[in-house]
Amino acid sequence: MTSISFLSNIITLKRIPRSGWITHGVSIPDVESVADHTFSACALSLLLTDLERERGVRVNAERVLRMAILHDLAEALTFDISKSYLSFLGKKGDALKNDIEGSAWKYVARSVGSARLSERYVKVQNEYVSNSTVEAQIVHAADGIDILLQILELRRRGYPSELFKGIWNETVKKVEVTPIRSAKQLLRIVSREGSKHAHSQIK
Amino acid sequence: MTSISFLSNIITLKRIPRSGWITHGVSIPDVESVADHTFSACALSLLLTDLERERGVRVNAERVLRMAILHDLAEALTFDISKSYLSFLGKKGDALKNDIEGSAWKYVARSVGSARLSERYVKVQNEYVSNSTVEAQIVHAADGIDILLQILELRRRGYPSELFKGIWNETVKKVEVTPIRSAKQLLRIVSREGSKHAHSQIK
Amino acid sequence: MTSISFLSNIITLKRIPRSGWITHGVSIPDVESVADHTFSACALSLLLTDLERERGVRVNAERVLRMAILHDLAEALTFDISKSYLSFLGKKGDALKNDIEGSAWKYVARSVGSARLSERYVKVQNEYVSNSTVEAQIVHAADGIDILLQILELRRRGYPSELFKGIWNETVKKVEVTPIRSAKQLLRIVSREGSKHAHSQIK
Amino acid sequence: MTSISFLSNIITLKRIPRSGWITHGVSIPDVESVADHTFSACALSLLLTDLERERGVRVNAERVLRMAILHDLAEALTFDISKSYLSFLGKKGDALKNDIEGSAWKYVARSVGSARLSERYVKVQNEYVSNSTVEAQIVHAADGIDILLQILELRRRGYPSELFKGIWNETVKKVEVTPIRSAKQLLRIVSREGSKHAHSQIK
Amino acid sequence: MTSISFLSNIITLKRIPRSGWITHGVSIPDVESVADHTFSACALSLLLTDLERERGVRVNAERVLRMAILHDLAEALTFDISKSYLSFLGKKGDALKNDIEGSAWKYVARSVGSARLSERYVKVQNEYVSNSTVEAQIVHAADGIDILLQILELRRRGYPSELFKGIWNETVKKVEVTPIRSAKQLLRIVSREGSKHAHSQIK
Amino acid sequence: MTSISFLSNIITLKRIPRSGWITHGVSIPDVESVADHTFSACALSLLLTDLERERGVRVNAERVLRMAILHDLAEALTFDISKSYLSFLGKKGDALKNDIEGSAWKYVARSVGSARLSERYVKVQNEYVSNSTVEAQIVHAADGIDILLQILELRRRGYPSELFKGIWNETVKKVEVTPIRSAKQLLRIVSREGSKHAHSQIK
Repeated sequence: MTSISFLSNIITLKRIPRSGWITHGVSIPDVESVADHTFSACALSLLLTDLERERGVRVNAERVLRMAILHDLAEALTFDISKSYLSFLGKKGDALKNDIEGSAWKYVARSVGSARLSERYVKVQNEYVSNSTVEAQIVHAADGIDILLQILELRRRGYPSELFKGIWNETVKKVEVTPIRSAKQLLRIVSREGSKHAHSQIK
Repeated sequence: MTSISFLSNIITLKRIPRSGWITHGVSIPDVESVADHTFSACALSLLLTDLERERGVRVNAERVLRMAILHDLAEALTFDISKSYLSFLGKKGDALKNDIEGSAWKYVARSVGSARLSERYVKVQNEYVSNSTVEAQIVHAADGIDILLQILELRRRGYPSELFKGIWNETVKKVEVTPIRSAKQLLRIVSREGSKHAHSQIK
Repeated sequence: MTSISFLSNIITLKRIPRSGWITHGVSIPDVESVADHTFSACALSLLLTDLERERGVRVNAERVLRMAILHDLAEALTFDISKSYLSFLGKKGDALKNDIEGSAWKYVARSVGSARLSERYVKVQNEYVSNSTVEAQIVHAADGIDILLQILELRRRGYPSELFKGIWNETVKKVEVTPIRSAKQLLRIVSREGSKHAHSQIK
Repeated sequence: MTSISFLSNIITLKRIPRSGWITHGVSIPDVESVADHTFSACALSLLLTDLERERGVRVNAERVLRMAILHDLAEALTFDISKSYLSFLGKKGDALKNDIEGSAWKYVARSVGSARLSERYVKVQNEYVSNSTVEAQIVHAADGIDILLQILELRRRGYPSELFKGIWNETVKKVEVTPIRSAKQLLRIVSREGSKHAHSQIK
Repeated sequence: MTSISFLSNIITLKRIPRSGWITHGVSIPDVESVADHTFSACALSLLLTDLERERGVRVNAERVLRMAILHDLAEALTFDISKSYLSFLGKKGDALKNDIEGSAWKYVARSVGSARLSERYVKVQNEYVSNSTVEAQIVHAADGIDILLQILELRRRGYPSELFKGIWNETVKKVEVTPIRSAKQLLRIVSREGSKHAHSQIK
Repeated sequence: MTSISFLSNIITLKRIPRSGWITHGVSIPDVESVADHTFSACALSLLLTDLERERGVRVNAERVLRMAILHDLAEALTFDISKSYLSFLGKKGDALKNDIEGSAWKYVARSVGSARLSERYVKVQNEYVSNSTVEAQIVHAADGIDILLQILELRRRGYPSELFKGIWNETVKKVEVTPIRSAKQLLRIVSREGSKHAHSQIK
């Protein structure tokens, strides 16, 4: 039977801050929760799925959304492990992050209370990490676009664009190489908005 | 083309408080965002879908998740219209809420930038409001279970259960009559947890 | 006898956020409460009363202050109904807002526990809504000037003036047509301050 | 002419925390502003005025409300000077508080920009401090009742009554000796509510 | 020369939340910063040094305080790595935490801008981690006593003691085995206070 | 024996805001605690001690750190008495602040529970106030440099430099006349950073 702890993990994500923003200088009450981010990644994944289909690409929407909903659930246990932590371990860092989150994920999946479901949820996570299907690539692109939109929002509300220069460029680079065409199109919309704002700050 | 305003609406939901909790006495920084709630409704909808399928019920997961993701998007424009507002209008209140949210929803859907998508998103909203398909009933049940879990979480952290007596009972009543069997099962798990806590406060 | 619920309504206003500011992009902890705003409207109403009298205009100060204190009390029940909600109803919106707040107000007034007082408080609210006496016009002007001063304060603390362009212009327009001469004078002081700040941001 | 600094003082009070609550253990976002408190003192002063008049007592409502609105305005400059500060000076403490606030008040009143108004506002403050007219006594009683209601509100939301035992008893003692009969009546209502809550916590 | 980045690290610690408290259910604005904790560890280390000396034990106060001040400085880069993260790696977890923090620490120490100072600061960190001198043991004990006092403070303000049962017991166990006699004495004072509170909650 | 109240004072400092920042326009959740500031003053005092020693100056590090740790402890009782309060008393203001804090300090020191320690802690405070030893001058310089670094941090995160012009200049002036050479060197680093930021805002 589904355990209360699986349900609690869902609720807990509403309170876990995306701690990377604190590092970038965002005030704590302005830091989004992991749940906030996941919702946005879900909505953008849905939009990308629909736009891809309009272009004639076959996409399994159920699998996309399943991945989008579950991809950060383990952070109820591991928190939002920021990259800066692990950068001190050099190359080992990234592997380690996947290691920790993978173990946590198995722990979470087990609490769903049905062996079959649990196994299935582990597979979803693996598909996301391997990033080799159209469906996984859509979720990765949505994840990046959410970061860019969040930066635009923070800048619009008065945070200096200086604070986000590093993460902005790094994220743009990641999304640029996506094979998902509609994601590139959204990236253009977002980038244009970004340079508009930068302009209005200079003048 | 997808307009930046459709994307902004998604991001805005991270900052809109579920204002009903303020009325119940929750401190403002402890009030979840509409995005927080929507994420949880998505995850619970997915779980219910999977549990129903294990029982042999046919469910269209894509439609469930689409509805769960979109069902509160118009609140970026209308805010979380609390019931107490509208109770002062008597019976007209509920109809009015649907009216306002329906108009707002059409406005949002239009900004997606494709006539076909826009039309489709309006249909999703209508299916949710009419609440007559298995898929819509799953999302409604998930919506209610999220409220109960959120109350448990607030009580666990020190909020007196007195504050939530009204909304707890009202929500239990709503979920009890759901035709979704797995939702009733989750309700039992949640209720048991609820009385356990109440007990530990008395002793 | 005065019921505890009348007293509670007063205290509750300290916790109800003026939710319009959230829509404009203000961080939640920087959003004033309805009580914060009402205090400021009271103080500005008193100042306008005194300035008008210095100019020889007869003003009933008691009635002015009574209106200023009570004009938003019903928001303890209805919250701060933002205009954006109701704009989706078109012209019906404004009438509706008055409708909801009027019903709520009668409910609140009844809890004061004396039929005579209760009736009197309803009259105060009606005078405010009709906006046809000098006293009501003073409170309306004070209400608008508070909004402008609050915007100046938020801009001074780093919020971009872009965020408030719409509401600034709309409020200036409303105050400009007031028949209260001292209010126009305050408006000039506030507007000058406003363009000074805008200037210092450009340079 | 009225200076912008007089207007700024009004707005500033929305951001000055009533710092005594921090000392008592209240979380910072739950601490009311000085403006929050002043609004409540105004509304309670109005209610007491109306109740006294119903009993046949003659009260000058304008003077009451004027005092209620202005009585804490100088705290925009002096902050909310908590008693604990000054207790370290023994008997000199109270005199000192009046001294500091008196000087600040004169400074504020001067900025109103009219010698006559400025003088008048200083007199209002003096009447409040001397506490010898019916009008001043109403404002003092309202000030105390607001503190008691605020404690009830904090307890209702989960703060242990232990935190406020000292200030509760001290404030009850102050209000008990008021010559304002309606204030004693409100005190009974509030006290009854207070013991009800205490009871529900014990059981 | 000392680089601005060394100075920035100090300031950054004021904004890094001790994220473990979030996991335990504490509201985000009630979560102390790493700087808050470090200050308390310094003050308790000083007190323990003085108490030990009164008992005739020789303690190098300079070394104690140096360690207390510097022991968490690397968290400006690594954040407060909570144990729960690493528990998913089993036994490797603790070693890993020291690894990450050790690398970060070297990075920070280098920015002090003098090879000799930098080397010295690395030694301080090593002494702290090895925990084999009286001086290091004092800082470790102070670190634990601060956690216990912080729990008492949170409980006093209304957080249920349930939330902290695990971390309370675990920390008591750690401090109990300290060779520092004065620390055991403080532990007794703190424990007595802890059971007093628990009692008052039950009754 | 050490009383629990001495220990509580330490913990309380984590919650006392440095209220001066509120006056300057900083949002309440961005206001550091007194403990935050004290930690930073400790770390900067340690750095200055080490830099002075590298220059061949003899400094008693234990005495420096003892003073840095204890210098604001009395603010657990007196709060952070802002200068603006006392400016209304003219010249008497400064003397008064020392008076209040001195009495509070004696009260705190007594609670340490050993006559000898208590006496010693009072001496530490006196040395700090008299500001005539190298050790005291280091702590005073560190106190000022922390204020400047905190301003840089707030500006970097979007607060306009206008808000801090007064306190920035006043603090620079104070640190400029320090006899501590390394403090002047840090001041140069900080000032250069300050004008860099100002520049980037203008362009």
